[in-house]
Amino acid sequence: MTHSFKNIAVFGKHDAQNLEPIKRIMAFLEKQGKQVLFEKPLAQSLGLETGYSLPELGKKADLFIVYGGDGTLLGVARRMAPYGVPFVGINAGRLGFITDIPSEAMDKELTEILSGQYRIDSRDLLRCQQIRDGQVIFDDIALNDIVISRGVSGGMIECAITVDNLPMSSQRADGLIVSSPTGSTAYALSVGGPMIYPSVPCMLLIPVAPHSLSNRPIVLPQSATIDIDVIHIRDAVLYFDMQDNNEVKVGDKLKIFSSENSIHLLHPPTHNYFDTLRKKLHWNYVPKDRQ
Amino acid sequence: MTHSFKNIAVFGKHDAQNLEPIKRIMAFLEKQGKQVLFEKPLAQSLGLETGYSLPELGKKADLFIVYGGDGTLLGVARRMAPYGVPFVGINAGRLGFITDIPSEAMDKELTEILSGQYRIDSRDLLRCQQIRDGQVIFDDIALNDIVISRGVSGGMIECAITVDNLPMSSQRADGLIVSSPTGSTAYALSVGGPMIYPSVPCMLLIPVAPHSLSNRPIVLPQSATIDIDVIHIRDAVLYFDMQDNNEVKVGDKLKIFSSENSIHLLHPPTHNYFDTLRKKLHWNYVPKDRQ
Amino acid sequence: MTHSFKNIAVFGKHDAQNLEPIKRIMAFLEKQGKQVLFEKPLAQSLGLETGYSLPELGKKADLFIVYGGDGTLLGVARRMAPYGVPFVGINAGRLGFITDIPSEAMDKELTEILSGQYRIDSRDLLRCQQIRDGQVIFDDIALNDIVISRGVSGGMIECAITVDNLPMSSQRADGLIVSSPTGSTAYALSVGGPMIYPSVPCMLLIPVAPHSLSNRPIVLPQSATIDIDVIHIRDAVLYFDMQDNNEVKVGDKLKIFSSENSIHLLHPPTHNYFDTLRKKLHWNYVPKDRQ
Amino acid sequence: MTHSFKNIAVFGKHDAQNLEPIKRIMAFLEKQGKQVLFEKPLAQSLGLETGYSLPELGKKADLFIVYGGDGTLLGVARRMAPYGVPFVGINAGRLGFITDIPSEAMDKELTEILSGQYRIDSRDLLRCQQIRDGQVIFDDIALNDIVISRGVSGGMIECAITVDNLPMSSQRADGLIVSSPTGSTAYALSVGGPMIYPSVPCMLLIPVAPHSLSNRPIVLPQSATIDIDVIHIRDAVLYFDMQDNNEVKVGDKLKIFSSENSIHLLHPPTHNYFDTLRKKLHWNYVPKDRQ
Repeated sequence: MTHSFKNIAVFGKHDAQNLEPIKRIMAFLEKQGKQVLFEKPLAQSLGLETGYSLPELGKKADLFIVYGGDGTLLGVARRMAPYGVPFVGINAGRLGFITDIPSEAMDKELTEILSGQYRIDSRDLLRCQQIRDGQVIFDDIALNDIVISRGVSGGMIECAITVDNLPMSSQRADGLIVSSPTGSTAYALSVGGPMIYPSVPCMLLIPVAPHSLSNRPIVLPQSATIDIDVIHIRDAVLYFDMQDNNEVKVGDKLKIFSSENSIHLLHPPTHNYFDTLRKKLHWNYVPKDRQ
Repeated sequence: MTHSFKNIAVFGKHDAQNLEPIKRIMAFLEKQGKQVLFEKPLAQSLGLETGYSLPELGKKADLFIVYGGDGTLLGVARRMAPYGVPFVGINAGRLGFITDIPSEAMDKELTEILSGQYRIDSRDLLRCQQIRDGQVIFDDIALNDIVISRGVSGGMIECAITVDNLPMSSQRADGLIVSSPTGSTAYALSVGGPMIYPSVPCMLLIPVAPHSLSNRPIVLPQSATIDIDVIHIRDAVLYFDMQDNNEVKVGDKLKIFSSENSIHLLHPPTHNYFDTLRKKLHWNYVPKDRQ
Repeated sequence: MTHSFKNIAVFGKHDAQNLEPIKRIMAFLEKQGKQVLFEKPLAQSLGLETGYSLPELGKKADLFIVYGGDGTLLGVARRMAPYGVPFVGINAGRLGFITDIPSEAMDKELTEILSGQYRIDSRDLLRCQQIRDGQVIFDDIALNDIVISRGVSGGMIECAITVDNLPMSSQRADGLIVSSPTGSTAYALSVGGPMIYPSVPCMLLIPVAPHSLSNRPIVLPQSATIDIDVIHIRDAVLYFDMQDNNEVKVGDKLKIFSSENSIHLLHPPTHNYFDTLRKKLHWNYVPKDRQ
Repeated sequence: MTHSFKNIAVFGKHDAQNLEPIKRIMAFLEKQGKQVLFEKPLAQSLGLETGYSLPELGKKADLFIVYGGDGTLLGVARRMAPYGVPFVGINAGRLGFITDIPSEAMDKELTEILSGQYRIDSRDLLRCQQIRDGQVIFDDIALNDIVISRGVSGGMIECAITVDNLPMSSQRADGLIVSSPTGSTAYALSVGGPMIYPSVPCMLLIPVAPHSLSNRPIVLPQSATIDIDVIHIRDAVLYFDMQDNNEVKVGDKLKIFSSENSIHLLHPPTHNYFDTLRKKLHWNYVPKDRQ
């Protein structure tokens, strides 16, 4: 990965309150001699003449700087995964798990990263193929999680799950989450899942509100292929990072496996995962000699 | 409550496989000199001339015998609550928490009950008023639970909760369950709630997939009034026993409190709650002198 | 309960750092014309001539003011329960669940309480009789919880539990907690128990690290008698509020039921339980009109 | 790994009820021309002249067959790890997670394994060094878990945890479990941990009854070194597979990391992990075409 980030895409929601901070980022980057690129709608909101489509940005940019929250970064990273462009996340409000540069420290930490002082943190993506009558009818990737959830009718979903073609279990639940280590601090955490250090090569399968009390989260090898046969539902929905979705019908099969693509997050060298956990989860750490 | 159950309503889904067992129940009751009444659709399926509406059954019947699962009993009990008719549940398949007479023991246990040998087990109902712009737009009762749940958009619900007008907490979650003790072994159990002995005068408030890790189930006095202000949702649904439902909008208030009505379940004298728990949850009990 | 608290016992650990605040409380009370009483060791540390035994304080005092944490209040309240003296808890450091007057608000809130402006919050106590070979060998009460726990050998405890002489379940676990509503925010909370509003008339039975996945907390009526037959242990200990303890042997029976005594906590009129929960558990509450 | 298992150690508790099944195993093996070796006490109970010490068995045997439960296999496997001898577990009673050949299927499945038809399932071991005043005072390995637990005084343990020298968190709890994937279905499961497929290269850190509600299980890379500084305890114990133990004092440091040794379990080719989970946890699996 090159250190000479010449063309830098800056991405954020084109909300009114985002324009000032994004202009500050643009000014900061241009002062360092960088070419700054924007997606069309944001460019317009900023009063710029030239804007690009996301695929164009994917091809042109050496670096993506996302200003916003984890949700914003998830959304664009999922779509940019095939281009291999690295990402930096600057948090607009509350610190995120992946947008881990606070906006007040932006100048200092961006300077470090642009000078080549960073740690690369590659996150694997999950891929899910939705198969109906033998045909793939939907095929997408997710950074956090693939989720199948009951719809509004209130009936549980019933699925039969195999892992690498070995029967694992039948499940009746509100939903099923297949999460990457990155997603372990998102939806999966709220239903009792473990936190998983990002580099552990695995997937997490965890039910939402399971009918049976002996159901538990299970950590599977990253190499696993999880097949979910949808046996019985009233209505159900398939989600990618809880953002994109598609309707699911009885008889559908969901084939979930690790994507060949990954996302490369750049962090300042002093950032570490445990610091983020501590801040987000209000943990404390009191070293030995202070106690 | 009178022991002389003269007019007995027999209730069940009019599925083909239910007709034989229901005819057996009818024959058994008529042999004991009882008048047996059916709802219209079931009467037709049985080839009988006379059938009644549910309200008519509520007025005429001294006892309701429900053949089916917990869901079937919940559905009819909720609608019959105002009539105060007692209920007996005969399980069509797997033993239920409230349909606790197995069909193979039916003759023996019904005989006991009809001869006045029974224990009355009164279950309190929850009531929920959905208020929009100051008007009650929906008002219903539930035996198990009142639930507000996110819809298909994937966004969490955000609510502010007060109890007896005292601020309790704001919640971001997939959903919120307010459960009676009866409902504590239903949906609430699948999201980590405690089991609550039916006679404890209380309500259980428990989130589904809460965003904050410090959220926990909370047991409140039965006398409490819980107000849920719907602050932010993409789409959401209000459920009564996960059967009836109504759409919820931002700004709605849900006022939940104990209903003035209750349901009276009749059990054979030897039945006890812990036996049912043990059977349903695969617990074992080994008495002291066998170990 | 009389408002004219003439003789007030002030209780706290006689640690060096407690003496100043306790002197302040004494001065404050004497200025209001109260007779202030201390236990002997604390009186000595304060350089006073007259100190009393705890039973003497129980008889003489109209009110107990405890300066310290929840643990300190638990310890003295358990022993003073038979005397029926009401308690006020002033927190020495972090806010407690029951020592809920912060020391900086002490003057204001004590003034209110002494003038008769208070809410009485009565908390039921649990009682446990440890029976060996038919004899009661230990008999004590607890405000939070009665706990049986494995000792240092590492082997699980195995118990058979009956409730009102009805078989409930056999349990293999690290331990078993029987908690009052007051104790629901203490040890029981750390093993997944629900919070229980103090006035709900119930007990909570919850295992610690149960061997079976279908074990769950269960809320029982306050009138219940729980018998725990100790079937198999390597070594085990019985705790009262995790403070006092006694060794348990195979064959022992623990009989647990609600004590005839209760503890009366006095709170300033504006205090409420949910405020304490929110502060202790870092919950937030954002009212409707601020969102 | 050689298929020609010539010298086979058979290991089991020398309880009376074990002698017949062990004699059957011996007869079965001798019929196949194998040399069968026993530890001294078991040899004596069987009336044999020649018995060996465990280290002698470690050097002489090509295969260990353990007759008993998971606990028995854990105990001997931990001590035999340095010798690299593979293990087969035959369950004496209820199916185990690692003693996964039921005794009634023994002849068939042992025949397969002895003929070279097996799958090797290598399980990593954890190692823990207990360091006091800069000196390693205890150093041992475990197959399931390393646990630090409060003793009988009832006080929580307080520890500061670093991972690869990065501060992670301070913890107040009944105990802390560091578990291998193998141990994830043992003690860790009973405190809410995830199940971990045995081949996922990781460790699981999970508290027992943590004081803070935001504590969660965390899955760490297998390469991690976890340092636990014991900050405050009344009394505490360090366990290896909950079998061996050593006292812990304030100021001790526990250094936990993956051992260089592993245990090689041999399974019949048709065995798979999910079958064992399903049987042990009473899961069901209903394939698509049966529903």
